[in-house]
Amino acid sequence: MRRWLALLSFLVLILVAIYAAWAARRVPDRLAGVPSGKTQVVDLTYALNDHLPAWPGDDHPFEATAKAGFEKDGYFTRRFCSLEHYGTHMDAPAHFIEGQATVDQIAAQRLIGPAVVVDIERKVAGDADYRLTRADLQAWERRWGKIPEGAIVLARTGWAARWPDARRYRNTDPAGLMHFPGFAVDAAEFLTKERKISGVGIDTLSVDFGPSKNFEVHRLTHAAGLYHLENLASMEKIPPKGAFLVAAPIKLEGGSGGAVRVFAILP
Amino acid sequence: MRRWLALLSFLVLILVAIYAAWAARRVPDRLAGVPSGKTQVVDLTYALNDHLPAWPGDDHPFEATAKAGFEKDGYFTRRFCSLEHYGTHMDAPAHFIEGQATVDQIAAQRLIGPAVVVDIERKVAGDADYRLTRADLQAWERRWGKIPEGAIVLARTGWAARWPDARRYRNTDPAGLMHFPGFAVDAAEFLTKERKISGVGIDTLSVDFGPSKNFEVHRLTHAAGLYHLENLASMEKIPPKGAFLVAAPIKLEGGSGGAVRVFAILP
Repeated sequence: MRRWLALLSFLVLILVAIYAAWAARRVPDRLAGVPSGKTQVVDLTYALNDHLPAWPGDDHPFEATAKAGFEKDGYFTRRFCSLEHYGTHMDAPAHFIEGQATVDQIAAQRLIGPAVVVDIERKVAGDADYRLTRADLQAWERRWGKIPEGAIVLARTGWAARWPDARRYRNTDPAGLMHFPGFAVDAAEFLTKERKISGVGIDTLSVDFGPSKNFEVHRLTHAAGLYHLENLASMEKIPPKGAFLVAAPIKLEGGSGGAVRVFAILP
Repeated sequence: MRRWLALLSFLVLILVAIYAAWAARRVPDRLAGVPSGKTQVVDLTYALNDHLPAWPGDDHPFEATAKAGFEKDGYFTRRFCSLEHYGTHMDAPAHFIEGQATVDQIAAQRLIGPAVVVDIERKVAGDADYRLTRADLQAWERRWGKIPEGAIVLARTGWAARWPDARRYRNTDPAGLMHFPGFAVDAAEFLTKERKISGVGIDTLSVDFGPSKNFEVHRLTHAAGLYHLENLASMEKIPPKGAFLVAAPIKLEGGSGGAVRVFAILP
């Protein structure tokens, strides 16, 4: 009897040890692995210059001029001017909804969150006006589990392959209407009403698809306090689930948005 | 004999289980705790507007003008202009050393690293021109261990209490010389030659102290490929050791530096 008891305790202990070792392996501090390169970091940001695809009508969207140089001054500085919505940028909720948070007012806690990457490249290949639907989000959830609290939900459309060719990226038809993918209204409703996320992002000019006239997705998501990341780069380098995003916008007091640096910290 | 062996295995297993459980507790994924608030994030960045303390002579350092507004357009956007070295900003190595990395060229991996916070407030209270020395760094190491690879070393001088009062922050004497603390040359030599860090930061206008004429620290650190974070906020909210910094500069192609968003992810 005592022998069986000892054997049983023995087995329980082995299980506890295995579980604890597994748990320790499963939750390493991935930040600690960054300097050594053990943890990979992907930069989802395009460099800013004066010849990136801008929103139609946004003339002279960016400019940088030298203010001091090595020959004359012994050091180098510049002054730059930019639209708040140019290059890889953030739309603050105040962009479309009066009284909502300006870009400096978004809490740091909401700028760091799990990346949910929904791949709609195949659907976009057959339809440039494709919009990521509620059904696409639910298909993602069936495979990867419920979209977690504080997530940043990214539509991976494959449109980044057209960057920085403004003609192909805007894809304007003879009638002047743009054609590129975005989020569907039912997806925005699902994300704002049935999930608790921090923001959405996309590798196109806008979270609303190209032909949009009234920016319904902007209005829905901003009214719910969500921000947008637009013109994201290198989304193909991050997995559907498991990466953490840091979305760090320039802290413009009272800004409607601004240039954002986005890092994906891989699992 | 068999009984003693069993008892010994038993004890070893208990120790393994305890160690594994302890290890699992010790290295939680702190990123995963951000959305719930379990992991705290401190924003070390001041909001950008046109009345922050600028470097002497930097007139009109920042400007933001509305481009679209709710009444007329139904949405809100602005255009802004800024010097690259204004507000909470990063100096890229190209700021003082020709051929070194511009701000867009610094690898993402080097922008995320352990924060080493060296508190010199008491010394500064007695001497506004105090410079953080090699001895101060060695005193930090005696207490907290060797400065880790990829660290971002911050001088906490207490000067942030004078922000945003430009007169007190610059602290210019009747002869026109500024007086505020910085890093000493021997500290810069120690950090560039004897440790492998990514950058240095400070809660003043410059990593070189106020009276500096030739910016020796700038030249030493930039020549070694290190970047600087200047005009940092809220440093008193992060511990001497254990926080992780994310320093996310605006990705200006060919820039000498630029506005940076700095988050400290606490242990």
